[in-house]
Amino acid sequence: MKLVFLGTGAGVPSKERNVSSIALEMQQEQNSTWLFDCGEATQHQILRTPIKPRKVNKIFISHLHGDHIYGLPGFLSSRSFQNGETPLTIYGPAGIEAYVMTSLRVSGTNLTYPLHINEITDGTIFEDDSVKVVAKKLAHGITSFGFRVVEKDLPGQLLPEKLKAYGIEPGPIYQKIKQAETLTLDNGTVLYRKDFIGPDKPGRIVAILGDTRYLPEVVGFVEGADVLVHEATFSGNEDDLAHRYFHSTTKQAATIAMEANVKQLFLTHISSRYQQVDTLLDEAKQIFKNSTIAYDFFEADIPSKQ
Amino acid sequence: MKLVFLGTGAGVPSKERNVSSIALEMQQEQNSTWLFDCGEATQHQILRTPIKPRKVNKIFISHLHGDHIYGLPGFLSSRSFQNGETPLTIYGPAGIEAYVMTSLRVSGTNLTYPLHINEITDGTIFEDDSVKVVAKKLAHGITSFGFRVVEKDLPGQLLPEKLKAYGIEPGPIYQKIKQAETLTLDNGTVLYRKDFIGPDKPGRIVAILGDTRYLPEVVGFVEGADVLVHEATFSGNEDDLAHRYFHSTTKQAATIAMEANVKQLFLTHISSRYQQVDTLLDEAKQIFKNSTIAYDFFEADIPSKQ
Repeated sequence: MKLVFLGTGAGVPSKERNVSSIALEMQQEQNSTWLFDCGEATQHQILRTPIKPRKVNKIFISHLHGDHIYGLPGFLSSRSFQNGETPLTIYGPAGIEAYVMTSLRVSGTNLTYPLHINEITDGTIFEDDSVKVVAKKLAHGITSFGFRVVEKDLPGQLLPEKLKAYGIEPGPIYQKIKQAETLTLDNGTVLYRKDFIGPDKPGRIVAILGDTRYLPEVVGFVEGADVLVHEATFSGNEDDLAHRYFHSTTKQAATIAMEANVKQLFLTHISSRYQQVDTLLDEAKQIFKNSTIAYDFFEADIPSKQ
Repeated sequence: MKLVFLGTGAGVPSKERNVSSIALEMQQEQNSTWLFDCGEATQHQILRTPIKPRKVNKIFISHLHGDHIYGLPGFLSSRSFQNGETPLTIYGPAGIEAYVMTSLRVSGTNLTYPLHINEITDGTIFEDDSVKVVAKKLAHGITSFGFRVVEKDLPGQLLPEKLKAYGIEPGPIYQKIKQAETLTLDNGTVLYRKDFIGPDKPGRIVAILGDTRYLPEVVGFVEGADVLVHEATFSGNEDDLAHRYFHSTTKQAATIAMEANVKQLFLTHISSRYQQVDTLLDEAKQIFKNSTIAYDFFEADIPSKQ
């Protein structure tokens, strides 16, 4: 798992920071990449990374402000132009379907792949065998969601010493033992996986929040995350501005990170008024040490826990 | 008058060429800038030029394909964000209003300036004292327009020798003589402007065509233009491809330029399959010598005729 920040600015693009988009690379885990928000020129940013549009199979939209969605029609069209064939699903607030479908219809765009659009509310919005995504409404004037991506725990490592004690030597059978709860050998012996395997490997938790005012109740939602991505449009002493424009300050974001006991905090959605971010970083670190100010094309590996 | 090519690629953005947009700078003539098409990330390209979004007061959209319109909502929003207050008018095919208004409505964007949208058909779509814009349908599968921008002739230069013969010395009175057809002096003498002024200064003609198949009947429409901007998606020997996809080749564009007796030809909308454009340029020049392959940020002055 790896986060790639494609756009880390606020409201309008600047030469330094594009408008919002983050990629969650899960090539190893899911053979896919997910996007979180898709501001204008996200596809242009992707051109400068190894990300392949046809590998993007989910796009989560936090809210409908232009700097978070105006890159969607272009990304969808180009994915089609490049012969993307696998389905893609967009998850976002009510209204996202009208926006996307009007844009595609007016421009005469016929996608080469199935497009699904799920207008979401709070709760689990996606779940498969290996991962679950939960959405929660934030406080941004218009509906804005945070997303909690929870990797499911994986079975632990096989314990070769215990297998050898049963006379089972390394080979393809190891994989079979790992894949099912029980396995019957040719001689009739029934092996129970739990007897040959270490403790579960805990899944990772990645919390990516859309634009929001300081919202203490979000602490429970991001509790214990390996990574929290939180907006920090304003510096620490701009509480009033932040409140008025439904945004957060560095200090507010760091407070959420500290109280939720997350492992790492990435701050994004930085206003273009801040050309130097040293002060912003100091403000955050005073409250939550493991803070980073993201920048365009910044990458962060999220290592497995074992 | 100056053309600034903001995006010269075809269909999808590449690292070398963005999708379509051209600025016609008329700061001296009109204190404004006009855009022709507005593909995704046009506002990003503008960031790298001296063009001021608040000075853009007209946007002409040739057709509704995504690579020509997906930058509109972002451009309009950012112009608002940057406190643009003067009105802006969009001219384009039927459907452009639904696209723009849906994008702005869904994203909760309230512009700080009046926005007018004129869905156009063939004929004069704009005219004031100094300039006229005529539209003509091309051949692109969906409705696609070409635009002929015609500057009106200006009164010629004052002829100081003739004025001196009347005992009129240089001073503010020269401006007065130039501004009206007649001027009555304090001593009752009536001066007729035509007696003191050289021949009219002919206005310039700029023809900018949207995507189109080779269309011989467009020759009359672009006849005598100082500048013709024509698409050349394909190289000269790809007539079949060009016809199939409703585009033109270098040779077809150059043929139009030659037959219409224009002064200069700028080729744009170059497919990303052509990394080197030397061959494309040669093909065009063999038919029409004064050909140029445009590239992103290429600027072309269109000098006055006197």
